[in-house]
Amino acid sequence: MTDRPDTPLLDTIRRPADMKHLSDAQLHQLAGELRDETVAAVSVTGGHLGAGLGVVELTVALHAVFDTPRDKIVWDVGHQCYPHKILTERRDRIRTLRQKDGLSGFTKRSESPYDPFGAAHSSTSISAALGFAVARDLGGVTPEGLGDAIAVIGDGSMSAGMAYEAMNNAGDLGKRLIVILNDNEMSIAPPVGAMSSYLSRLYAEEPFQDLKAAAKGAVSLLPPPFREGARRAKDILKGMAVGGTLFEQLGFSYLGPIDGHDMDQLLPVLRTVKARATGPILIHVLTKKGKGYAPAEESADRGHARAKFDVVTGEQKKAPSNAPSYTSVFAQHLLKEAAADNKICAVTAAMPDGTGLNLFAERYPSRCFDVGIAEQHGVTFSAALAAGGMKPFCALYSTFLQRGYDQVVHDVAIQRLPVRFAVDRAGLVGADGATHAGAFDIAFLANLPGFVVMAAADEAELAHMVATAAAYDDGPIAFRFPRGEGTGVEMPERGTPLEIGKGRIIRNGGRVAILSFGTRLSEVEAACESLAAKGITPTVADARFAKPLDRDMILQLAADHEALITIEEGAVGGFGSHVAQLLSDEGVFDAGLKFRSMVLPDTFIDQSSPADMYATAQLSAKDIEAKVLSVLGVSQIGAERA
Amino acid sequence: MTDRPDTPLLDTIRRPADMKHLSDAQLHQLAGELRDETVAAVSVTGGHLGAGLGVVELTVALHAVFDTPRDKIVWDVGHQCYPHKILTERRDRIRTLRQKDGLSGFTKRSESPYDPFGAAHSSTSISAALGFAVARDLGGVTPEGLGDAIAVIGDGSMSAGMAYEAMNNAGDLGKRLIVILNDNEMSIAPPVGAMSSYLSRLYAEEPFQDLKAAAKGAVSLLPPPFREGARRAKDILKGMAVGGTLFEQLGFSYLGPIDGHDMDQLLPVLRTVKARATGPILIHVLTKKGKGYAPAEESADRGHARAKFDVVTGEQKKAPSNAPSYTSVFAQHLLKEAAADNKICAVTAAMPDGTGLNLFAERYPSRCFDVGIAEQHGVTFSAALAAGGMKPFCALYSTFLQRGYDQVVHDVAIQRLPVRFAVDRAGLVGADGATHAGAFDIAFLANLPGFVVMAAADEAELAHMVATAAAYDDGPIAFRFPRGEGTGVEMPERGTPLEIGKGRIIRNGGRVAILSFGTRLSEVEAACESLAAKGITPTVADARFAKPLDRDMILQLAADHEALITIEEGAVGGFGSHVAQLLSDEGVFDAGLKFRSMVLPDTFIDQSSPADMYATAQLSAKDIEAKVLSVLGVSQIGAERA
Repeated sequence: MTDRPDTPLLDTIRRPADMKHLSDAQLHQLAGELRDETVAAVSVTGGHLGAGLGVVELTVALHAVFDTPRDKIVWDVGHQCYPHKILTERRDRIRTLRQKDGLSGFTKRSESPYDPFGAAHSSTSISAALGFAVARDLGGVTPEGLGDAIAVIGDGSMSAGMAYEAMNNAGDLGKRLIVILNDNEMSIAPPVGAMSSYLSRLYAEEPFQDLKAAAKGAVSLLPPPFREGARRAKDILKGMAVGGTLFEQLGFSYLGPIDGHDMDQLLPVLRTVKARATGPILIHVLTKKGKGYAPAEESADRGHARAKFDVVTGEQKKAPSNAPSYTSVFAQHLLKEAAADNKICAVTAAMPDGTGLNLFAERYPSRCFDVGIAEQHGVTFSAALAAGGMKPFCALYSTFLQRGYDQVVHDVAIQRLPVRFAVDRAGLVGADGATHAGAFDIAFLANLPGFVVMAAADEAELAHMVATAAAYDDGPIAFRFPRGEGTGVEMPERGTPLEIGKGRIIRNGGRVAILSFGTRLSEVEAACESLAAKGITPTVADARFAKPLDRDMILQLAADHEALITIEEGAVGGFGSHVAQLLSDEGVFDAGLKFRSMVLPDTFIDQSSPADMYATAQLSAKDIEAKVLSVLGVSQIGAERA
Repeated sequence: MTDRPDTPLLDTIRRPADMKHLSDAQLHQLAGELRDETVAAVSVTGGHLGAGLGVVELTVALHAVFDTPRDKIVWDVGHQCYPHKILTERRDRIRTLRQKDGLSGFTKRSESPYDPFGAAHSSTSISAALGFAVARDLGGVTPEGLGDAIAVIGDGSMSAGMAYEAMNNAGDLGKRLIVILNDNEMSIAPPVGAMSSYLSRLYAEEPFQDLKAAAKGAVSLLPPPFREGARRAKDILKGMAVGGTLFEQLGFSYLGPIDGHDMDQLLPVLRTVKARATGPILIHVLTKKGKGYAPAEESADRGHARAKFDVVTGEQKKAPSNAPSYTSVFAQHLLKEAAADNKICAVTAAMPDGTGLNLFAERYPSRCFDVGIAEQHGVTFSAALAAGGMKPFCALYSTFLQRGYDQVVHDVAIQRLPVRFAVDRAGLVGADGATHAGAFDIAFLANLPGFVVMAAADEAELAHMVATAAAYDDGPIAFRFPRGEGTGVEMPERGTPLEIGKGRIIRNGGRVAILSFGTRLSEVEAACESLAAKGITPTVADARFAKPLDRDMILQLAADHEALITIEEGAVGGFGSHVAQLLSDEGVFDAGLKFRSMVLPDTFIDQSSPADMYATAQLSAKDIEAKVLSVLGVSQIGAERA
C-alpha cells in the first residue's frame, strides 16, 4: 500500500450509478479497493479512520442496492462517512478532509446531494430518517426525489435517549423505514450502559459462523404477508438470536445479526429488505471498527481519530507540543482536588479520554461515572449527586452541553445545586468545524440566575478555576476552556480558589481598556505590543467571571477610559452583552462611552485551524488592534489585515 | 363530601413518622381520607387533580413503608404530589397550592425536606434517584441522611429519552434503586408511541383479577439469592406478564404488574422490596388517573389540570374571557395556512391540547405528529421533514423547547432548514411558576446564525406571524407568544406575511423611544397614557423581530431621541442585548445615548398571577413609566410603585 493505492475498479466509479452494472464479485473487489483508498487518504489528512473502515462493505452494499441520492442514507454522527464520500463524487477531494476549504469530516447537506442530512453529534439519524420517510409518504418534494430512508447508527449512539425517542415514534407510526444498527461493540470510549451489555449478550449467544446461513434465509424472513415456512424460519432465527426482542417491542421488525464484512450476507439481506419491507425494520449488522488495517485494529480505540500517519506502520505524525493541553491541566488538577476531598466525583458522557477523565477513572474508579452518550441524564444525575452531598464535576464539551440544556436550567439552576461544569472545547475547535464549535455556552449559562460562569485565560488560570469550583458550594459553577494547548505559562503546583466575581488588571494603560474573557487574552497582549509601537498603551483586564460580573472593576474601567472593548470566544448574548447590560443599567452610556463588544460573528464557521478560524471570526490580535485604532479614531493605514 | 371533608385519621397525621404505628386497615382508611382531602383542596385552588388521585394509595404505602425524608422519593413531573404534600407537613397550606406565596404545584426542594428533588418537566426522576443512590453508596452527606432512592414515574414520562438514558445507566451501575412505573395508561395527552402500546399489550394480556395473587407471591420474587421455588414463581409471573422483558434487558429486576389501588398488594410488595432488593428494581404499578372521584374519572383527560371546581358536580369555575387565547389564535390560523398549502404539517411533543394542535390533528390527521414527550426527537424529525420538502410547524412551550436545544442548533440552524417554531408559553406563565417560565428562548435562539426570531405584540400580530412563517422558506423561523388571552384587538380573517426584519412605529413622540418586543407593548401603551399626563410623549415601536433586527428603524430611533428603552419578556442576552450590540457596533454610544434594556430580572420568580409576576419582574406599565422618568431625569415622586 502506498499513498496512492492501486484501485483499478474504484477508478471507474465516480458515483453510485456507476456501480449498478457490477457483479457481486466486483462489488467485493470494490470494497477492498475502497478500504485501501480510505486508509491512504486519512494517512494524509488525519481524521476518523476506524469507523469508516468498519463500514466499507456496508457502504458499498448500500450504494449498490439502493438508489442514492433519491434514497436517503443518514449516517449517524458521520465519523464513518469517508468511504461514502469517496463513492459519491468526492474522491477527487478526499485528501482535503477536515482541511480549510476542504471536505467536512462529517456528512454535510451543502457538500453533496448524497448527504441528505448532516451530522456530527450522535444519535440523530433515526429521527432524520423517519422525517424523510414521513415526508415521502406525504408527498414531500426534493430535487433528488424521496425514496427509502435508511439510518445507519452505531451501538454507542443507541445509548442516547434521542435514538430511543425516535425508535419509539417510528414504531408507532409504522412507516417503511430502515434502521441499520452498526454494532461494532465499541463507541468512542469502551461502550457503557445496559444497552451495550444487552448487545454484547446477543453477540456472545450467537455463533458467528452460523450467521451466514441464517442471513441467506433472510429472504423469507420479512414482515407480512408471511408464508408459513417463512414464519417458522423467523422463529428459529429469533430463538437463536434471542435479542430482537427489545427492538421488536418497540415496534420494529428485527433482522440479524449479520456479518457486516461479508458481502454475501449484506447484499441479499439489503436486496430483500428493499424489495419487501413494509413497516420499520431494524437490521443488526456486526462490524469491526478499524477492520482490515492492522494498526487500527490493534489499537485500543480501533483508530477512532488519528493525526496524519505512516500507512505502513500506522505511526502518527502529530507535532509535539511544549505546553500542556487545557484538557490535561483540567484533569491533573481535578485529581489534586479529589485527593484532598473524597466528596469530589466526576461525570462524563462517553468522553472519558476527550475530557481527560480517563485519569480520574483510573485513580478513583468508584467516583467516576461515564453515563454513555446521555447528556440529559448526565446533568440531572450530577444534580442529584450534589443534592446527595457529593461534589460532582460534570465534564462535557461545550457543544454537547447543549444536549443537557434543559436539565441545566430545570434541575441544576432552579434548584441552585452545586454542580461544577467543566466546559471543554469552548470556542472554535478547528478540524471538527461548525458542528463542534463551543459558541453558545456563555450566553446560555450566564443568564441563568444563581450560576457562576468563568473562563480561563490560560492554563494556570484553569488550575485556579478547578480549585475555585471545588471550593465553591453555594450553587452551580461553570468554567470554560478551549481545545488545544496552553500558552506555556508557569503552572502552580495546585490551584488557589479565586474570589468569586473578581477580575484582575493585567496591565494599566490609558485611553482604551480591553476587557477579555477567556483565552483571547494572549491575542490582546499581542495586539498591545503592536499598539505600543504606535504609542497606544491600552489597559488590559481579565474578567475571569461573566457571572457575577466584577461590577466595580468594570465601572472603574469605563470611568477611567474613553473606550472600553470586551472580547470573548462566544456568540452575542454572552459576556459582552452582560457588560453592556451593566453599563446601560448604570447609565454609563448616557454621557458617552466608546463601547465595543468583540464576539463570534453571526455565521457558522467551517473547519480550518483554530487560528485561521479566529482570523475569519475577526478575533485575532490584528483585529483587536484594528478595533482599538478604529474606536480611537486613529488612522488604520498599515493596521488593516491584508 | 364538603369543602372540609371528615378526616379523623388524617387529622392525626402531620408527617410520615406519625403513620408508623398504623395497621394496614388504618392505612387503607387513611388513603380514603387523603383522597377526599385532595379533591376538596384542589376544588379550592385548581390544579392537577387526576394524577394525585391516581397515586393516593401508592403515596400512603410509600410513606408507610419507607423512612422519608431519609429515603428519597422522587416524584416524576410532580403533578401527582398533592397527596404527598398533605402527608408531609404541608396539609395546613394545601389550599394555597399554586397561589402566590403558597405551595408550589410541583415538588420543590426549598419547600420541604420531603421533596429531595424538585420537578416539573417530565422524566428526570430516574436520573435523580440514581444520583441519590450513588451518593449514598459513596458516603454523601445530607441533613436528613441518605437511604433508599425511589423514583415514581408515569408511563407517559417513559417516552422521553432521558428516562431511557437513566434506566440504561442504572442497569449498568447495578446500585440498589427502586423505580416505580406508575402505569395509568395515559400521560397528559392520550399516550403515544411504541412504549405506550407495549405497556398496553402488557395490560391486556394480564388478567387484572389474577394480579393480586401474583403480587402476594412477590415475597419470593426478588433478586438473588433465589430459592428454587422463588425462581419458579418468578418464571410463572414473567410468563404470565410477558413484559418485564424490556426492563429486564436494561438490567432491572422486574416486579409486576400490581394493582396500584390495592393496599393489600402495594404494602407487601414494597415491604419485600425494602427488605431484600439489591440492584435496580422496577415495580410496575397499574393505576387509574382520577381514581375515586367520578367527575375526574369520567372526563376525557381524567381531570388532568382543572380550574377551581364544584366538588359535587365537578363543574369548573373558570371565568369566561372575551379575547381568544394566543394558543387558539395560533391553532386557528395555522389551520387556515394548512388549508391553502398541503405541505404544511405540525409536530408537537405530548402537548396537542396545550398547543392547540388537537384541532390540526382532527382536520389533518395525516399531517399532524405527536411524537410523545420527546423534544429532542421532535425537533430533528421536524428538520428532516423540512429537508424532505415539507413545511413543518414545531409547536412547543418555550420551556420545553430547551429540551431540544442542541437539535435546534445542530440539525436546524447549522443546516438552515426551514422549520417553523411556534414557541408557546413565552415569558412568565403564572401558576406553574419558575420551572415553566419561558425566559430564555429569545437569548438561545436569536444568536443562532440564520434564524429569524419574532414575538407577537398581540393576537392579530400572531396571526400575521403564522402567515409569515408559512410563507418563509429560507431557513428556520420562530415566533413566540405568551400563555393566556390576547388583548381583544380586531382580528384579520387571515394573516398577512410580514416583511422579514421590519418593525413598525406605533406612535411618534419625542425625547424617548420605547422599543418593545412582544406583548409588553400593551403595558408600554398604558405607561404612555400615564406619561402623557406628565407632558411626556414617548415614541413607541414594535420591533416584531429580534433577528434580523430592523437596523434602519433602530438607528433612526436612536438618532432622533435622547433615550432609547427596549423591553421584552425574556432574560438578558436576548432582544435588548442584540440591540445593544448593534448600537455599540455602530458607535451610537460614543456620543452618548441614554440606553436602557428592560429584561426579566436575574431571579427565578415563583408562581403567582402573570400580572403579579411581571410586577415582581419590574416589567409592568408602572415600571416602564418609572424607567422613562428616571432616564429623562424627571422627578419620580408619585410615579414610584408602592
